[in-house]
Formats: sequence, C-alpha cells, structure tokens
Amino acid sequence: MDSSPRYRQLALHYLQAIQAGTLQAGDRLPSLRALMKQHGISLSTALQVCRTLESEGWAEARERSGYFVRRPTRLATPPMDEPATDRAPDPAQYVGIHEKVSEFVMRRRYGGVQLDLAVARGAPSLYPADALRASLSRLLRQRPQMLTTAAPSRSRTPFREAISQRALRAGMRLSPDEVLPTNGCIEALNLALRAVARPGDTVAVESPTFYGLLQVLESLGMRALEIPTSPQTGLSLEALELAVRAYGNIKAVVVVPHLQNPLGSVMPDSHKARLVALCEQHGMALIEDDTYTELLDAPLVPPALKSFDRSGNVIHCASLHKVLAPGMRLGWVNAGRWHARVEMLKYTQTRSNEELSQWAAGQYMATGAYDRHLRHLRDQLRSQRARTADSVARHFPAGTRINLPPGGLQLWVELPERLSADRVFDAALREHILVAPGTLFSNSSRCDHFVRLNCGWPWSPALEAGLRRLGKITSSLAAAAPADPRRGAIATAATVNE
Amino acid sequence: MDSSPRYRQLALHYLQAIQAGTLQAGDRLPSLRALMKQHGISLSTALQVCRTLESEGWAEARERSGYFVRRPTRLATPPMDEPATDRAPDPAQYVGIHEKVSEFVMRRRYGGVQLDLAVARGAPSLYPADALRASLSRLLRQRPQMLTTAAPSRSRTPFREAISQRALRAGMRLSPDEVLPTNGCIEALNLALRAVARPGDTVAVESPTFYGLLQVLESLGMRALEIPTSPQTGLSLEALELAVRAYGNIKAVVVVPHLQNPLGSVMPDSHKARLVALCEQHGMALIEDDTYTELLDAPLVPPALKSFDRSGNVIHCASLHKVLAPGMRLGWVNAGRWHARVEMLKYTQTRSNEELSQWAAGQYMATGAYDRHLRHLRDQLRSQRARTADSVARHFPAGTRINLPPGGLQLWVELPERLSADRVFDAALREHILVAPGTLFSNSSRCDHFVRLNCGWPWSPALEAGLRRLGKITSSLAAAAPADPRRGAIATAATVNE
Repeated sequence: MDSSPRYRQLALHYLQAIQAGTLQAGDRLPSLRALMKQHGISLSTALQVCRTLESEGWAEARERSGYFVRRPTRLATPPMDEPATDRAPDPAQYVGIHEKVSEFVMRRRYGGVQLDLAVARGAPSLYPADALRASLSRLLRQRPQMLTTAAPSRSRTPFREAISQRALRAGMRLSPDEVLPTNGCIEALNLALRAVARPGDTVAVESPTFYGLLQVLESLGMRALEIPTSPQTGLSLEALELAVRAYGNIKAVVVVPHLQNPLGSVMPDSHKARLVALCEQHGMALIEDDTYTELLDAPLVPPALKSFDRSGNVIHCASLHKVLAPGMRLGWVNAGRWHARVEMLKYTQTRSNEELSQWAAGQYMATGAYDRHLRHLRDQLRSQRARTADSVARHFPAGTRINLPPGGLQLWVELPERLSADRVFDAALREHILVAPGTLFSNSSRCDHFVRLNCGWPWSPALEAGLRRLGKITSSLAAAAPADPRRGAIATAATVNE
Repeated sequence: MDSSPRYRQLALHYLQAIQAGTLQAGDRLPSLRALMKQHGISLSTALQVCRTLESEGWAEARERSGYFVRRPTRLATPPMDEPATDRAPDPAQYVGIHEKVSEFVMRRRYGGVQLDLAVARGAPSLYPADALRASLSRLLRQRPQMLTTAAPSRSRTPFREAISQRALRAGMRLSPDEVLPTNGCIEALNLALRAVARPGDTVAVESPTFYGLLQVLESLGMRALEIPTSPQTGLSLEALELAVRAYGNIKAVVVVPHLQNPLGSVMPDSHKARLVALCEQHGMALIEDDTYTELLDAPLVPPALKSFDRSGNVIHCASLHKVLAPGMRLGWVNAGRWHARVEMLKYTQTRSNEELSQWAAGQYMATGAYDRHLRHLRDQLRSQRARTADSVARHFPAGTRINLPPGGLQLWVELPERLSADRVFDAALREHILVAPGTLFSNSSRCDHFVRLNCGWPWSPALEAGLRRLGKITSSLAAAAPADPRRGAIATAATVNE
C-alpha cells in the first residue's frame, strides 16, 4: 500500500516507536549496520533514515557512538490534561459567537497583520499549482463547452469517481452517485445540519471546536451543546452519554474524528464504533467532518466513522480545501439515509457545483501524482509542526503546554492559567502578529487561556523571529499577570480539568 | 450608448414602431431610397435593415412595391388577459412544491427526453466559450497561485468591478465592495431571504413564479403568499396593497421586474417607484431578481428596482448564468442595509466564491466583446422566440394564447381552458418531448392550463418537427377533452381572470 521511498517508511517506523515509548529518550537507535541487515537496505538508505530522524529533532548523532533518541526540546512542555466529564454540559445557545468572530475579523482587517498564525491554512507553495493548471488547461482545450453548459445535477464526474475510489481506503463503500459535490466542507455541513435538524433543535459538538461550526449553528438558529473533548482521543463518549441522559433530545452530533480542530486529537477506532452505535441507539444523526484525514502522519488511512455505519445514520462531509487546492471550493457530502433530502437542499441552495474544477481535480486525483503530493505535504507539515513546537517550548513562559498532534497544520497551545488568550491576542496584534484566541472555539470560558497557531507556513527566518517575538510577548504578560483580578477570574473559570 | 451596427439599430427602431402600432400590418415601410436619405446610410445598409425585419417575420417584400409590415402569424393567438386583483390572496404555505418538482425531475430523468422545452436555458453555442477559455487560460498562466490560495473574503476582483460599473447603466451606484459574489442567483436569493425573514414568516411572491423560488421558500420553512401578476406589467401593486391590508405581517416581497419568469412581463418604471415606496412604507424588504435584464430587446437597460431605493431596503440579486456562462456559477447580491448580515451568512454557508472564474468573467466583461456577445445573444433569442411563437400559432389548438415577451428565452403559453397542462406533459413525455407544466409555477390551480416553452435552442428542422408534434398532441387532447369532469373542474378553478 505505502509507496513512499523506503527510507521514509523506515524513518516513520522508528518515529512511531519513539512516539509510542518503545524507544525512549537516550536509547540508542539500531546501528547503520544493524539497519542494513534487519531491513535489507543499502548503507546510503540507512544513513537517510537516521538523518531524517535527526533533521526533525527525534534523534541526535553522538560521535563514534551512533544515533540516539533525543528528548525533543518541545517535550519540555508537558502534554495537556484530559477534560472533566463528570458534569452534564450546559446547552447554551451560541448567541454570541458571531459577535466575537466579527470583532476578530474586523481587528484582523485593520491590524496591519504581517504574520498570520490564526488561520488553519497551508502556504500556496505546498500545493500542486502547476499540475492543477495543466489539468485545467487541457480540459479547457478538450471540453470548452463545460463553461457554457449548465452542469447536470447527476453527472458522473471524475471527481465523484475519485472520491468514491479513495473512500475504499477508509473503509467506506459508496458509489459515485452517493458523492454529492458541494462548495467546500462548510456547505456540506450546512446541508447535513439542515437535513437532520430544525431551528431551535440541539446539536452536540466537540468542545473546543472549529468556530466556523459554531457560526453555522448560530446562523441556522440551532443550539450547540458543548461536549468535553480529549486532546488525545477526541470527543468524550462518557460526556456524550451523560448529556443524552440529562437532556435527551439531541438531534445530531458533529465530530471531527481525525485531527480535530483545534485540538489535533485522533479518535481510536474502538471509540468510533461505540460512537456510531450510541448515535444510532438514541436517534441522533452523526455528522462526520473528515477534512483533515489525509494530513495524518500514518502509513494507512484510519477508518472513517462512516465505515462503521450500517443504517445510513452517519453523514460524511469533507473537502479538498486543506489537502489539494485551497483556491478551489471542492467539498462533498455522502448523506446516508438523508441523501435525497440533502440533494434537494443542495439544489435549492446553490444548484450543482461547476464541472470544470471537478474534472480537473478528479483527473489529477486518479494519478499517482496525487499520492506523491500528499506525502510531500505531510512531510512538510510534520517538519513545520515540529519546528513550531520547538519554538514554543523554547520561547513561551513556564507552564505552557502543548500536545503535538500526529498530523495537520496547527498547534493548540495552553498558556499558563492566569494568562488570558485575549490579552495575548491584543498584545501580539499590536506587533502585527495574529493568533487565534481560544475564546473563539467555545462559548464557555474553558478555552480562555489557549491559542491556536498555524503551522502551514514554510519555515523561514521571519517566521522564526515572529514566534520568538510572540514568546516574549507572552512571557512578559505572564510575568506581569497575577495581580489582575479580571484575568484571575478568567483563569479560574478557564481551568481545563483538574 | 448603443454601439451595435447601424443597420441593427435601425431595424430595432422600425420593429419598435411596429410593436407600438405606429406602423400597422399592411403599411408600407419607407423605400430603400427613403431610408438612405432619412438616415444617411448606404444602399447595402438600407437593404440589411429591411432584410433583418423580413427574416424575423415583421415585414414582407412584395415584388416591385417594396417592404410591407406583415401581420405576424403568431398574432393569430390573442394576448392573455390580466389577472383578477380584487380578492385578497390565500397565504398558503407551499408544502407541496418539492413533491411536484421531484416527481417532475424523476419523470424527466427516466422519460428518455429527446427535446427538452422545459428548461429555461440557452444552448451552449449561444455563449462565448472560446473567449472565456482564452481568458481562463491566460489567467492560469499569469496567476496559477489562485488555485492554491484560499480566496480572501473581500478581494477586489475584476468581476466585482465589472458588475459595479455595469450597474450604473441600470441607475444603481454601488461600490465593488457592495457586490458580494455568490454561487448563482439562487444562492443570492437564499441569503437575501435568510437575512430578512425567519422560518414561519410570510413572503410575497409573484404568481405564477419560478418554481425554484417556491422550493427555496419551502426549504427555508417560509410561507409564500401568491400575488396576482400581469403578463404585461408584472406584479399587481393593487393586489399587493390588498394583501398588506388583509394580512399585515409580510416580511419581504420577491420580484423579477424584467422578463418575469415564466410570464416575460416587464414592470413599468412608474410601478417600480410605487413598489419601492410601498415596501419601504410597510417595512417589507424588497428582493429584486434581476437575472434576465440583459436579455431585453431594448436599446437601453431599464432602471432596476434598486435604482429607486433610498434607504437600503432593496436587495438586488442577479447572475451571469443566462447571459454569459451557464457553466460558471457566478451570481451576486447587493444587500443594501442587510449587507453585513448577508456577508456573514454567505461566509457561514459556502465561504467566498472561487477567484478564478470571477477574474475570467470580470476581465471579459470589461471588454467590448461582452456587449457584442449580448447583442448577438439577444438577436438569436428574438429570432428563436418569434419562430417558436409562429409554430405555436400555427400548430396549437384554437383558444391557445401567448404573450410574446420583449426578450428572454421562454414563452408562456395558455392552453384552452378545458385542457390540463399535466395531461399535455404526460402525453408529450410519451413522445420524448419535455414541457414545463404550469402546475409547477403556483401552488394554486391558477396555472393548470399553462405550459412554459424554452426558446433557447437554435432553430432546426428537429426543433420545428418537435413543436409541430407538440401542437398535434395538444390539439388532439383538446378535441377529446371537454367531457372529463376532473379536467372541467381544474379548468374552472384555473380561469385566469374574466
């Protein structure tokens, strides 16, 4: 299955052993000779394995002794705690998130931002512009009439076929006709929610969650119920069960099983099976946002929630926005037993997607170049995440904590408790650095001392200087902080779990 | 202002004189010599004027006598009556339109359709595929990073600038920033309705109206109130006033002022001013669907409803779908005082539109080629409408009536009263011809004996044969009809106005 170069496969193999604790800091890696023998590889390949681990901060060479597992600098920041799940959550309607986001957007617009760490976005250079352009140009020559012909609602585009084929890897069997193209994952989520719930209904969401989802719920007049979510394993099933018992009438649950935004958590397969069964049992639709899976550092794509679905109760939503072409609005939804209703809502909302971009992306995805692009993208992001985490560990104040996620393009950073993320946002913006304060990701005060940092920009001296500057800003706020009663109050309220 | 060729300007001049009755059937047109002298044109230009009028059925050459105004065959079908406006309409919620449309769609899909007269669509050959392709190809060379860069929400694209400049011709002054690109006019209408009304609210619509609008209202849980609409002058202001007095709480009015779908009516400017004032006075948002204006056979673009707006109470929606590129989803909305709310809803629903197609269309629209394309398109459609109307007049049963609209790509045909459009639909589909039955355009029985016919396909022997066949089908149903009590009942209910 894995067609990446051999040295990369082996580097990943040892990296996972380090992450799992099989190899610990200070342990010696197998010698070059042992690597050659065990894996049947050449000396140069063995060297590449070690150097890859070294360049990403997982190993260090000691003269005449070989390579040793390094305790990465970033591990100086301890991992975050699990959330408390023994109290029923408060089903507050998100009446305020638009105002918060609007203020954020306004201040970003006029803040003279020079370094944007608030987005969750890869740099354009990470994506295959040339290949997409070539694909589009060829299609324009071969099928110019696509521009002047209204797209039929059910045409079998290469996009639908490519999505359907790749879904197999995640354990989903769906025909191209079940893949409904949408304008990004956000439209897919809108359609899914409109199909299964009405204004006034309650929808359970992860907490913290992607503020775009909170906006969608608010704009549809639905009530968001925040369910505590682990930075490691994602949505707490215990907390969801508690909420079901306490409130009963939950119409849907929205979950990002892989590389949750903003936490970066990955739900274990055993949790997925339980979650699918739980939703089925209690008549709650399960809406899966599968946008980040291809950004996972894993040799195999883990199974989607949808792959555990036997009754059509799971609606699977995703897009190519983060993995292939941020400039093309190509999402899709596979709506299970709500297919006809979602298809109708899509038609009444925006009609069928344009065909040209579907063809261009679909034809590209059917080639080996797409998998090569994805490997390159994952490699770049892994390195960028590692460097960003190192920088945070080095420059942020004592008490800062992070979980280094196993993929994706962002870091979720817990500041010392007494430090308000909004204060950090204010101070950083004055120096033209933008961060996403935790207050955008929950309507509770649970995330008031967190910030989300983008890792999508290629490493550069300017980026390094910006992170260092951000660390200094944060450190000086932390040093000055404890006496402020407002911050004190927020810090108490924001305590994650103890 | 008018940069069309001189002969075309003059042909239009005489055509309007004929339509206005200044020149009547049998009148002699000015001689070639007189035309040359009066207008300072060459003999060949004068000949082109006469031949243009002849080829479109407005004039005929008589040997040695010159050109005479012809009584067009289509005038054998008398124009339709005005609707009754002396009873308050029934504010029925459209609970049924989806089922009707879904059945229609299903039957279309499996009906083996060979001639689709049900769409409202121009043939791909009517649109400038080559020029759009060249524009896109150039952009892909110059700005490939557009494919891999997420579109910023407020970028000044050439599309926004072109729309803003062309709006001046319709009396609207708006900055490019007020032009919000959407996925077609349908998304613009969705956003406008969501901004001004909530589920359960009542929205006034023209009757008959575009079934897509009824679907949108139903999907949003809003109640549609049908207001009688004149086939000549559009929405009846008297009927709207009556509805306001009778029901009060109408949140919005949706109007197609130019080439209403399906009637083809054009609202006089005096009505526009009154309508804008009436909506303002009663706190009803006025949503203008301006999709067809560029398809009007008129030397000047008439003023938009929005041009009469002084308080931001008019939301202007339109798209390029029917006029430039049916394969590109390029609409826009100028939301007046709801701008911020519509911008937010657009962001939460589908994010910003892709930039590439905006740039391609906008750059093309800024050239003279766009106006040349529009003139060509209008000429083609005028000729196709005239021929379709001729064919209907020649082949449909006695009692059939049509209004030949002054532009656009469809005809609204009134069958003899005893004839059910659904029966015509059934019988035609058995012969693989698709028509849009009037039942789709109203939830009342008002339109049960109407059909809408597309005029967007270039004239061909196959099209002519299909229309002849449709006429025969209709005639034989009409001959067999009167005894059926069901049809009798429908016919009575559907009487338009007498």
